[in-house]
Amino acid sequence: MSHLDEYCAQHQDRFAAELVEALRIPSISADPAYAHEVRRNAEHFLGAAIAAGFTRGELIETAGHPAFYAERIVDPGLPTALIYGHHDVQPVDPVDEWRSPPFEPEIRDGDLFGRGSVDDKGQVWMHLKAVEAHLKTQGDLPLNLKLIVEGEEEVGSKHFEELVAAERDRLAADVLVVSDTSFIERGIPSLCVGLRGLAYLEVDVEGPSRDLHSGAFGGTVANPAEALAGMIAGLRDPSTRRVMVPGFYDDVRELTATAREQVRSVPFDDAEYRHAAGDVPQTVTEQGFSVQEARTARPTIEVNGIWGGYMGAGEKTIIPASAGAKISCRLVPDQDPGDIQRKVAAALESSAPPGVRVRVKPISAGRPVLTPTDHPAVAAASRAVADVFGIAPILAREGGSIPPVETFSRLMHLPAVLIGFGLPDDRIHAPNEKFTLDQYWKGIRTIARLWDELAPAMARA
Amino acid sequence: MSHLDEYCAQHQDRFAAELVEALRIPSISADPAYAHEVRRNAEHFLGAAIAAGFTRGELIETAGHPAFYAERIVDPGLPTALIYGHHDVQPVDPVDEWRSPPFEPEIRDGDLFGRGSVDDKGQVWMHLKAVEAHLKTQGDLPLNLKLIVEGEEEVGSKHFEELVAAERDRLAADVLVVSDTSFIERGIPSLCVGLRGLAYLEVDVEGPSRDLHSGAFGGTVANPAEALAGMIAGLRDPSTRRVMVPGFYDDVRELTATAREQVRSVPFDDAEYRHAAGDVPQTVTEQGFSVQEARTARPTIEVNGIWGGYMGAGEKTIIPASAGAKISCRLVPDQDPGDIQRKVAAALESSAPPGVRVRVKPISAGRPVLTPTDHPAVAAASRAVADVFGIAPILAREGGSIPPVETFSRLMHLPAVLIGFGLPDDRIHAPNEKFTLDQYWKGIRTIARLWDELAPAMARA
Repeated sequence: MSHLDEYCAQHQDRFAAELVEALRIPSISADPAYAHEVRRNAEHFLGAAIAAGFTRGELIETAGHPAFYAERIVDPGLPTALIYGHHDVQPVDPVDEWRSPPFEPEIRDGDLFGRGSVDDKGQVWMHLKAVEAHLKTQGDLPLNLKLIVEGEEEVGSKHFEELVAAERDRLAADVLVVSDTSFIERGIPSLCVGLRGLAYLEVDVEGPSRDLHSGAFGGTVANPAEALAGMIAGLRDPSTRRVMVPGFYDDVRELTATAREQVRSVPFDDAEYRHAAGDVPQTVTEQGFSVQEARTARPTIEVNGIWGGYMGAGEKTIIPASAGAKISCRLVPDQDPGDIQRKVAAALESSAPPGVRVRVKPISAGRPVLTPTDHPAVAAASRAVADVFGIAPILAREGGSIPPVETFSRLMHLPAVLIGFGLPDDRIHAPNEKFTLDQYWKGIRTIARLWDELAPAMARA
Repeated sequence: MSHLDEYCAQHQDRFAAELVEALRIPSISADPAYAHEVRRNAEHFLGAAIAAGFTRGELIETAGHPAFYAERIVDPGLPTALIYGHHDVQPVDPVDEWRSPPFEPEIRDGDLFGRGSVDDKGQVWMHLKAVEAHLKTQGDLPLNLKLIVEGEEEVGSKHFEELVAAERDRLAADVLVVSDTSFIERGIPSLCVGLRGLAYLEVDVEGPSRDLHSGAFGGTVANPAEALAGMIAGLRDPSTRRVMVPGFYDDVRELTATAREQVRSVPFDDAEYRHAAGDVPQTVTEQGFSVQEARTARPTIEVNGIWGGYMGAGEKTIIPASAGAKISCRLVPDQDPGDIQRKVAAALESSAPPGVRVRVKPISAGRPVLTPTDHPAVAAASRAVADVFGIAPILAREGGSIPPVETFSRLMHLPAVLIGFGLPDDRIHAPNEKFTLDQYWKGIRTIARLWDELAPAMARA
């Protein structure tokens, strides 16, 4: 057992306890009522980063929630890695479905339950502990580290591009390292080499200026909830499951035979996938594509929320004055999020029936990204993972989006190592989000090793 | 000016003030949290009925909210009228759209605003005041009155049929009188001779056992909100606006040429109707039918509420675990509500896409009713209205439903006089419900006269 592994084993309970404390801060970025908690959370993380061995840390103000920055410059002549993460979390509703309260973390059967445990507070905390463990057992780092952690990832990183543009010099690096992704499954480590983009919008349908009595007026005025249902139903062909928005697939880079081969080489068990996907009775995909292709290399459109009229107990016989929905697309290269937002908006507006008014507003947008699988940083990360987990990671695309990764790629041309330690059943964005502690602890050891692998690889690159 | 009119003029401010007090009790029957208020309200109304001149009053318990009964038996040899009303009210959401709080009634420009002002507390209160005014100015009533006021009309009169069956002897009468309807428009008095029925149900669509991350899973599992939208979209043909539920129109009694003539004789102004209907940009009806035909003599299906997933500010990138909707049909003779509930449920279930589970549960049901327009009681009511409003009422069908009227018709074969004093812009079931005080005051005078007209008419009948 190496000094590093020994140190991590001795301190693992403290590592868990520290994360539990960090998870108590309800840093929900979507709800303005929690703004002061997001700030308090940034300060808490920054303090922990300095304690772990980072220097020169400070909050970076934005027009929204603050980010924070810290660095450890060992020698300007060494390669530099920029670590990105986010300290904000998703909302928690439906809150009554949590077995333990979202901000009162609880460890059950080796899993740490709490909002943000894996997405992304726990994965940022791994980086702090990896620096601490490296400094305590291996001496100083073989490269320079910069750490930028934002507070608005869960609301579309609204001000992050601006921040990166303004801080470009301070953030200058040779490689980007992000831990905000998952293994393909428990026991099958993976590095992420592709992320889908996002185009999020909200549609509001308005009819009468007030709720109408459905007896007095039913059958003579357009019903906004029904109109919205029809507009949503028109977005996808129910038999082929292709998105019917005109021009939606125009810029989709079709999978090459090699890429399809690569996707198919990733182990896949439909029963296990259905279990991870909340025990759905069956998977459904766009015609002609496997589940793994559909979730990583094909775009989709999803209704994230829908509302209108009476939702209480019993009955209320009304025609609702309005109805609305949140709708988002996951995008693949080379779809442009702004272009897709415009096309979806146009499709919704043009399919509105007579008698209602429709307003569509864009909420957020992020481009898809791909990392070259033959980059030396990817090979270095693979060795670090193999060393700790005993098996080389699979290089896979993920279905989710991390818009800031795209921002760094576009503005700073940084290659990205996406080395995350979540598991598919972590229930991110949902009640009972968890981080499996074994993944957390091994993640810390893997990251501490990563710096030793990455420094020579980047020096040679 | 008659003694009666003088008395009503002298006491009109007190009549309004008493109603204001009655409206302060939040007797929302749909929400179990208000059960004690519904009971308190029944007691308040019963006390007022006794004070007005009714005798032998008592609460009648049901398996749900209590009804109350009172009577004034002048002479067993005289005809007997049974008055039906309801003392419960609709929920008040969206509560922030009320200009004054729903249970803190306010008079503005001659209108009394408050939940239940016209539906139906105010119209029941008219009957109490009409008895008071008759007794004070005309001497005793020329007929026997029985008053039955239930507390569950707004939740589908769930236990009322049982109550009527159990109390059939005590409720025995020659004619039913109900004030729970509206004039066609201000200045155009009308009596209602037809009511649509109601078939209300709730549909729940379930997908994954928890909300899923739309990036990780989007494109590979069925989205319950999208599935629900598709199922709802299939209920109506968007171009003809005919309901597409198989068998929906099987039992619809088509309008005869005479009936169409009658409907068309009712004055109708599309601009005014659109204004009353919350300023909708246009009316839309089933192909081949006018607005007045569509709202009174044709069935419809309406989405009363829809929900699923994230409805908060900003974004949440999830595939919702479930979605649901409240859906109800307005029915015309000879549609059967149970039959329609089964047909709609079957249509929803059979149109569910793969990957979701659908549950449909019936909420409430009421049959449509028609009153013979040549009944002497209708003629008597017409004379009373003409006397006070200076113009004979139009005999019209209404689009709404009053299931208890159908219960009395079916179980006790009572002809119904539907003499209501609401106006089309009263916003019943919606924020800012009001009762125009001039209608309220004239309604009291009309009802007091009604007894003098009805007694000889029923004696001859």
